[in-house]
Amino acid sequence: MRIIVINPNTSESMTDHLRRELASISGSGVELVCVNPDHGPVSIESAFDEALAIPPTLDLVRGAERDGFDAVVLACFSDPGLEAARELVSIPVVGIGESALHLAAQLGRRFTVLTTIPQRVPCMTEHIARRGLLNRLASVRPLEMSVLELDADSSRTKIRVLAEARAAASEDGADVIVLGCAGLTGSAAEVERELGMTVVDPSPVGVLTAETLVRLGLRHSKRGLYARPPAKLIK
Amino acid sequence: MRIIVINPNTSESMTDHLRRELASISGSGVELVCVNPDHGPVSIESAFDEALAIPPTLDLVRGAERDGFDAVVLACFSDPGLEAARELVSIPVVGIGESALHLAAQLGRRFTVLTTIPQRVPCMTEHIARRGLLNRLASVRPLEMSVLELDADSSRTKIRVLAEARAAASEDGADVIVLGCAGLTGSAAEVERELGMTVVDPSPVGVLTAETLVRLGLRHSKRGLYARPPAKLIK
Amino acid sequence: MRIIVINPNTSESMTDHLRRELASISGSGVELVCVNPDHGPVSIESAFDEALAIPPTLDLVRGAERDGFDAVVLACFSDPGLEAARELVSIPVVGIGESALHLAAQLGRRFTVLTTIPQRVPCMTEHIARRGLLNRLASVRPLEMSVLELDADSSRTKIRVLAEARAAASEDGADVIVLGCAGLTGSAAEVERELGMTVVDPSPVGVLTAETLVRLGLRHSKRGLYARPPAKLIK
Amino acid sequence: MRIIVINPNTSESMTDHLRRELASISGSGVELVCVNPDHGPVSIESAFDEALAIPPTLDLVRGAERDGFDAVVLACFSDPGLEAARELVSIPVVGIGESALHLAAQLGRRFTVLTTIPQRVPCMTEHIARRGLLNRLASVRPLEMSVLELDADSSRTKIRVLAEARAAASEDGADVIVLGCAGLTGSAAEVERELGMTVVDPSPVGVLTAETLVRLGLRHSKRGLYARPPAKLIK
Amino acid sequence: MRIIVINPNTSESMTDHLRRELASISGSGVELVCVNPDHGPVSIESAFDEALAIPPTLDLVRGAERDGFDAVVLACFSDPGLEAARELVSIPVVGIGESALHLAAQLGRRFTVLTTIPQRVPCMTEHIARRGLLNRLASVRPLEMSVLELDADSSRTKIRVLAEARAAASEDGADVIVLGCAGLTGSAAEVERELGMTVVDPSPVGVLTAETLVRLGLRHSKRGLYARPPAKLIK
Amino acid sequence: MRIIVINPNTSESMTDHLRRELASISGSGVELVCVNPDHGPVSIESAFDEALAIPPTLDLVRGAERDGFDAVVLACFSDPGLEAARELVSIPVVGIGESALHLAAQLGRRFTVLTTIPQRVPCMTEHIARRGLLNRLASVRPLEMSVLELDADSSRTKIRVLAEARAAASEDGADVIVLGCAGLTGSAAEVERELGMTVVDPSPVGVLTAETLVRLGLRHSKRGLYARPPAKLIK
Repeated sequence: MRIIVINPNTSESMTDHLRRELASISGSGVELVCVNPDHGPVSIESAFDEALAIPPTLDLVRGAERDGFDAVVLACFSDPGLEAARELVSIPVVGIGESALHLAAQLGRRFTVLTTIPQRVPCMTEHIARRGLLNRLASVRPLEMSVLELDADSSRTKIRVLAEARAAASEDGADVIVLGCAGLTGSAAEVERELGMTVVDPSPVGVLTAETLVRLGLRHSKRGLYARPPAKLIK
Repeated sequence: MRIIVINPNTSESMTDHLRRELASISGSGVELVCVNPDHGPVSIESAFDEALAIPPTLDLVRGAERDGFDAVVLACFSDPGLEAARELVSIPVVGIGESALHLAAQLGRRFTVLTTIPQRVPCMTEHIARRGLLNRLASVRPLEMSVLELDADSSRTKIRVLAEARAAASEDGADVIVLGCAGLTGSAAEVERELGMTVVDPSPVGVLTAETLVRLGLRHSKRGLYARPPAKLIK
Repeated sequence: MRIIVINPNTSESMTDHLRRELASISGSGVELVCVNPDHGPVSIESAFDEALAIPPTLDLVRGAERDGFDAVVLACFSDPGLEAARELVSIPVVGIGESALHLAAQLGRRFTVLTTIPQRVPCMTEHIARRGLLNRLASVRPLEMSVLELDADSSRTKIRVLAEARAAASEDGADVIVLGCAGLTGSAAEVERELGMTVVDPSPVGVLTAETLVRLGLRHSKRGLYARPPAKLIK
Repeated sequence: MRIIVINPNTSESMTDHLRRELASISGSGVELVCVNPDHGPVSIESAFDEALAIPPTLDLVRGAERDGFDAVVLACFSDPGLEAARELVSIPVVGIGESALHLAAQLGRRFTVLTTIPQRVPCMTEHIARRGLLNRLASVRPLEMSVLELDADSSRTKIRVLAEARAAASEDGADVIVLGCAGLTGSAAEVERELGMTVVDPSPVGVLTAETLVRLGLRHSKRGLYARPPAKLIK
Repeated sequence: MRIIVINPNTSESMTDHLRRELASISGSGVELVCVNPDHGPVSIESAFDEALAIPPTLDLVRGAERDGFDAVVLACFSDPGLEAARELVSIPVVGIGESALHLAAQLGRRFTVLTTIPQRVPCMTEHIARRGLLNRLASVRPLEMSVLELDADSSRTKIRVLAEARAAASEDGADVIVLGCAGLTGSAAEVERELGMTVVDPSPVGVLTAETLVRLGLRHSKRGLYARPPAKLIK
Repeated sequence: MRIIVINPNTSESMTDHLRRELASISGSGVELVCVNPDHGPVSIESAFDEALAIPPTLDLVRGAERDGFDAVVLACFSDPGLEAARELVSIPVVGIGESALHLAAQLGRRFTVLTTIPQRVPCMTEHIARRGLLNRLASVRPLEMSVLELDADSSRTKIRVLAEARAAASEDGADVIVLGCAGLTGSAAEVERELGMTVVDPSPVGVLTAETLVRLGLRHSKRGLYARPPAKLIK
C-alpha cells in the first residue's frame, strides 16, 4: 500500500519534520511518501494563504492518483482544498483536521483545539462547526506562535502546549487536546503524562485513517458532494 | 462613489450580461465597473473551479483597492474567495450570495435557492448553513443547466426558472425565490408576475449593499476574522 | 421615493433625534418623514411596553400605505409589530433591528449588541436567535441606562457605549458593535476611531435597506408568513 | 384555589365552549372562572389579531391578580401576550400552547400540531422552535377551517381532525397529536380510539398545569425575563 | 388513583425521605406508594450505576402495572430506564428529570441544574440537550457532595444549595434552580426566600405530572418510540 | 496486539458470523477474539433489550481488561453500554456505531442508515443526533426484518439492502450507506457495485479504529465523561 502525505505549504523543514514523525507510525507493508508543493506560501495562517496553497496542492493530488498511490493525506489542520481534491480523484483523500476531529469526538467529553496565532481561532471554530462537532468543543486556544516558530523552536512549543492544555482543562472543561497544526506533531507527550489528558495528534491519525480506508476498500462517494467537476475551458 | 463588480470566472459574455443588467440599478453619482480575471475557469460549478478562480480574483480585489475603488462586489453566488478578499483589503467587499441570502431572510417565510447543476446543491446548502439561515430555507433546486447554458439560452432559462419556482411554492412551501447564480440576473420577472412570489436577484442586491456600506461609512471589521494576513514568503 | 420612519414610542424628543440623524443619510430624491404615535408608552423597555405600542403603530403603518409612502421603517430595535405590519400592507416594512442584525453578520466574526437596561438582555437574545444569527453573537451588553436617559444625556451615553464596546472586544471576542436602541443613533463615532471596531447603527441601516428595496422593486412576499389577515369582526 | 381562564378573543361562544369542557377537569377545591375581553377580535388568526387582542387581555390578567385569583390560564394556543402578562403579575400565568407542547414532548416521539388556516403554519412552527422542541415536531397541519368554523361545526371539525391525524401518522411519522386551537377542545376522542395516537388537548393541560403550580407554590421567576416593567408615562 | 414512586437505587433511607416529602403533595383521592428495588447500587452517580439499576427497576415497573397502579414515577433525576419502562407498560411513566426540566423551561429565562459530583455534569448536560432545552440552560453546577452525603447531612446540603444557587444567579444569569437529584427534595426553601429565584423540586413535579396525566386520561403513545418490545428469547 | 470483539446479544450464530467476516480484516500481528455474553436477549431491538444486555456485556468488558486485551470493540450498532464500559476500564472501548458514523461523515454528503425493524428508527436517529451528525443524515430506513431474520436469510437480506439503498439514493439524496446492524456485516457488495454508493460496514470499521487507537497509544480520557465510577455498595 502506498500513501502520500502532502504538506500544502512550501516549508521543506516542516515536510522533513512530518516525515520523521510519521516514519514509525505506518503499518508493515505501507510505503509512506511525504511531499510539498514547490510554489505557494511557506505556511498557512489565513484564508489568503489557503487560497494560494490550494492550486499547487491539487496538482500534487492529481499527480498522486496518476502515480498509483492508494490514498492521499492532506497534512494541514485546516484541510485546505479537501473538497476540491475529492472531486478530482477517486482514491481516498484524508484531511488530517477532519479525521482528527472525528476521532477526538470519540475519546472524551470536550476537546480543546490548540492553534497558532489568534487570528486562526474563528476559522478553526467554523471548521468544527461545519462537521457538527461544536457540542464537543471546549475551546480553541491560540499558542500565540506562528507556524514557522512552532517548527523552529520545539522546546518553547512544548512549554506553550502544556500551558494551554492545562488552562483548557481547568478553565474550559476540556478532557481531550487536539493539536491544531501539523507543525505540532510529536510535541505533546508531557500533556498526557502530566495532565492525564488524551492528546490527538492529527498527522498520525490522518495516516492511519488513510490506511484503514485502503484496507477496507473504502473511499469517498462520487455520487454527490464529491462528483468529478464538469469539464470546461480553463484560460 | 466607485464600485467594482468582479465576475470571478473568465466568461466575458457573462460579465457583459452583468454590466447590462446592473447599469440601470446603481444610484446617481455611482460609477460601476464590471470586470473578470483573464485566466481561470470560464464558469464556476465545483470546488475545483472555485480553487482555480480565487487567486486571480484576489489579484483584482487588491488592484481595486489600489485603484481607489470604494467597494468591491464579488459577483458569483457561491462567494468564492470572499473571506480572503476581506483579509486583503480595507474597502468593503460584498458577496452577492451572502448579501442576497440575508435580504431574502427578511422578505418572507422560507426561500428556495435556484442553482445550476445538481452537484451544486450540497455546496449551496452549506453556504446557507454557514450563515445560520437554514431555518429560512425551503429548498435548493437545480435548474439542470450549466452556467454557460444559462447565459446562452435566456428563453429556456426563463422557462426553467418559472417551473422550479412553481414547484418550490407548491411542494416546498417557499414564498421567496433566490436566483442562485449571477448568470440568472434579469431572468425572473415572470415569477413575480405569475406566482406572486418575491424574487431576490443577487447581483443588484450586492451592488446596492455595497452602495449602502459606502454611504454609511461601514466596512468589515479588521479586528478579528478579517485581519490582514501575516506577511510571509510566498514561493 | 417617499419613506416613512415610525418611532413606535410616544417620545417626540426621540423622533426629533431620529429626524436630525437621518436627514443626511437618505439618497437624493428620497423624501423622509419621521413620526410617532400620539398614544402609547414614551419608551419601550418590556414586553408590556411593546404590547401597548403596537396597535397605534399599526394604525400609522396602515395610514402610510394609504398616503402613498413607498416604504415603512419601524425605528425601534426590538421591531415591535413587524410581523403584523407586514400582514397589513403591501409596501415594504423594514425593522431596524432585523436589517441591522443581518448586515452586522456580514461585517465581522461576532457582534455585540448594546441594549438599555439589564431586563432587555433575554429579549434581545431571542430576537437574534429567531433570525438564526446566534452563531454570530458575541454578547448582549446592557448600558444600564433607560431609553429616556440615553436620549437625554448624550455625553454619558457616549462614555458608556465606549466602555461596553471595549469590554465586548476584550472579554467577549466581538469585532462588531450593534447599537441596540434607536435612541443610540449617532453616539458611536469614538468606538470606531478608538477601538477599530465596526459599528452598526440600526436606524440609518433601516432607511437605506428600505431605499434598496424600493429601488429594486422588492417587498415581502404575501404568499406565506405575511398574508393579509382574514377579515373579521373586531369589537 | 381560584383559577381564571382567559380566552383572549371576544367570542362568548368559545368562552362558553371552554367553560363546559373544563368544568369536569378541575380538581376538588378548585374554583374555575372563564372570561374573555369585551373588545378586540372575535378570533385570533394572524399577528394582527394577536396585536389587537393583547392589550385588553392584559387588563384582565392584571384584574385577576387584584381580585385574588391564584393563577391565570391564557386559553389561546399561540399564547398571545404571555410574556407581558408574566411581567405584569406575580401569580403564575400558564399559556395553554406552551404547557401543552412541553407535555406532548414527554408522551411520544414526534407530535403533529393541528392548526386552523394554512397561514398559521409558520407562526405555529416558530412557537415550537422558540421552545426548543423542533426535534419533537413531526408537522404542523392546517385543518383549513377558521376558528369560528371550528367552534360552530363540531361534526365537520371531528372529521377533519381525524383525517389530518391519520395523515400525520402515516405521512409524517407522528405518534402524538396536539390540538393547536382552544376551539378544538373536546373534539378528538376518535383520534385516540381509532388511531391509537395520544392526543394532547391544550386547555385542560393548561388548567392542570396551573393547579400544579399553585399546589407546589411555584411561579415564574421575577429575577430575569419576567421582571416587572419599568414604571413610565403611557400617553 | 394509585401512583407508585420508584426510587431506582437501593437506599431505603432515600426512599423514606421521598415518602415523607411527597406525603403532603399528592391530591385528595391519590394513594402514593414509594418503593425501591432490593438489589442494585445504593446510589446512582455514573453510567455504570445506571446500567445496574435499570433491570431491577424495570421489574418494579412491570409489577406496578400488573398490580393496578395508574401511573409510575421514576424518582431519579437522570431518568434511568425511562424509555425501556415506557416500552414495557401502557400506564403513564413519568421521569422526574424530564418533567422537571420541561416545567422549569416555563418558569423563567434560564435554569441552573444542581447536581451531585462533578463527574455528573456532562451526563446532566446531555440529558437537557436531548430534550431540546439547552437554550434554557444557564449552567449545571455540582454540589461536590455524593448522593449519600446529600441524604445524610441535610444542613450542609442546604448551605451548599444556597451557595451554588447564588453563584448561578450572579455568574451564570440563572433565574430558576432545578434540584438535580431526588435526594435534594425539600432542601431549597432558603433559595426562594433569600434569592427570589424559582426552585423546581423534581420529585413533587413528577408526582403531580403523573396525577395530571391520569386525570386527563393521557399516556405515552405506543405507536412509535415506546412500542412494546418484540417478544424474544432471553437467556 | 489483542483485540476483543464483544457481541452484546446472546446469539452465538451472530458471533460466528462476525468472527468469519472479521477474520480477514485485522492487521498482521493482531489477535482478534469474538465473544458474547451467556445470558441476556438473543438480539437487541428495543431499549428494553439494551437494558438487559448491558450488565453482562459490562462483565465481559471488565474481564477483557483483566485478561490483558489491548482494546474492546462493542459490536452492536446502537452501542449499548458504551459510556459505562469506558467508565469501567482504561483500555480503549470502540462502539461500532459511533466509529462508523464518524467515518461515514468523512466519505460523502449524506448517509442513510439501514436498520432492522421500524421501531428502531427513532432510537437510531437519536444516536446520530447525540453525535452532532444530523446535518450528514439523509435518512434512517428500516429493512423490515428482525435481527435474527437478517442473520438467518442472507439472500433476502441482500435484496432488501439493495432495494433500500437504491431508494435512499433516489428519494433521500444519500450518497453513503451505513449498515446499521452488526448482523448486516458482509451483505452489501452489490450496493457499491450496482449503485456506486460508498458502503460503511460498522464492524470492520470498529476493529480498525481499535487497532488505530492501540497503535497510536490513544484511549478515552479518564478526566471527564469517562471517569471511573465512585466505589459504592451494590446490593
